[in-house]
Amino acid sequence: MTDPIRVSEIFGPTIQGEGALIGQPTVFVRTGGCDYRCSWCDSLHAVDADYRHTWAPMQPGTVLAEVARLSGDRPILVTLSGGNPAIQPLGPLIEMGRAQGYRFAMETQGSVARDWFAELDMLVLSPKPPSSGMAVDWAAFEACIAAAGGAQTVLKIVIFDEADYLWAREVAARYPTLPVYLQPGNHTPPPPGDDAASVDQAGVDARMRWLVERVVADGWFAATVLPQLHVTLWGNRRGV
Amino acid sequence: MTDPIRVSEIFGPTIQGEGALIGQPTVFVRTGGCDYRCSWCDSLHAVDADYRHTWAPMQPGTVLAEVARLSGDRPILVTLSGGNPAIQPLGPLIEMGRAQGYRFAMETQGSVARDWFAELDMLVLSPKPPSSGMAVDWAAFEACIAAAGGAQTVLKIVIFDEADYLWAREVAARYPTLPVYLQPGNHTPPPPGDDAASVDQAGVDARMRWLVERVVADGWFAATVLPQLHVTLWGNRRGV
Repeated sequence: MTDPIRVSEIFGPTIQGEGALIGQPTVFVRTGGCDYRCSWCDSLHAVDADYRHTWAPMQPGTVLAEVARLSGDRPILVTLSGGNPAIQPLGPLIEMGRAQGYRFAMETQGSVARDWFAELDMLVLSPKPPSSGMAVDWAAFEACIAAAGGAQTVLKIVIFDEADYLWAREVAARYPTLPVYLQPGNHTPPPPGDDAASVDQAGVDARMRWLVERVVADGWFAATVLPQLHVTLWGNRRGV
Repeated sequence: MTDPIRVSEIFGPTIQGEGALIGQPTVFVRTGGCDYRCSWCDSLHAVDADYRHTWAPMQPGTVLAEVARLSGDRPILVTLSGGNPAIQPLGPLIEMGRAQGYRFAMETQGSVARDWFAELDMLVLSPKPPSSGMAVDWAAFEACIAAAGGAQTVLKIVIFDEADYLWAREVAARYPTLPVYLQPGNHTPPPPGDDAASVDQAGVDARMRWLVERVVADGWFAATVLPQLHVTLWGNRRGV
């Protein structure tokens, strides 16, 4: 027995709705627990301690068996998300899955570095901008980049407003070798107990158009600007 | 003077709305004229001979100067589209642009091969499925793949229905080394003179959800499924 992983939900296959792997079929493993509490968190059911009783401690083999059941035993991209998956012992799951042909991408804010980041196929570092209310520990963030080693590493930054945008430009300038994905924020995230809550899609689309115009006006052509497709297609509904 | 390029429109920067380079800032150069006439063509203003008088013959240097004016003289991704850009003499434009740091992606159905495909950064081959009413010349298509040489080559296939989907699976199986992007078709393309025509976005979104479900049910995890973001964000409006 290895240390158990605290799992909020395992679902899919669906497509990755955002970032560098947008559109790719994937199974999501969402872990429970987070060292952050972003003001606009869209996954509070995996963050808020009130939901801790829903996070099942699972052995890596059990997690992988559930992924395989969902994928029909075909190797697929597994997306590790949270919460902050970096606070979970995911190394054995990744090792076991890769041996069977699964690929692994992980999304984390970059507050906790783990040596098993190097075993990922992609590390998505998503430092939280000022609107989140969080403060980035840049030493920890850089430890994450270093831990990734040869694993493909990209930045994904959620943008709500001009202050976030200017911050993203600074962050990107600090790490010029990392590809940058910008994503308009959803100001209508679901309350943790209500995934039928409606989304102000018109407002999110307007922010997306503003973000495209902002990037273009700045001549920031190295940035990629992408929405959250799953929100467009399925709203705040969970499990898709 | 080299042979002029017949240009329907040059616009941007905006983001690439679809396919492998989705979300990347780009300037579009849309050429006029096409050897196909797809039933659901969304760019008839660059295809229908009635609009031929709007296609300006331009020297490559003039095209590049206009791209540079739009991008503020900063190198950017240039997307060559049409119509079928492969029937235009684009080699000198690509050579001149690359010398100045511009990158070039081209979208073509794969009916006409050119030796300058090898100078592209990306060749997007978009063979037309049964719903288009067109028949693919596979010898010509394979000549396009061969002409691309070392240039990154991907497949993008528009899907309207089950017959298109099954066809796409066959095409993908025939070219296992080429990444495949699937895209739900827009059954409400704009009439050529009316870019304010409304889009049945709910219908297109439903087709996108169906396509995701179809791919997942088949376990076709190597496919990437992406919508046309520009249609979601800007409808049928041209120049964005």
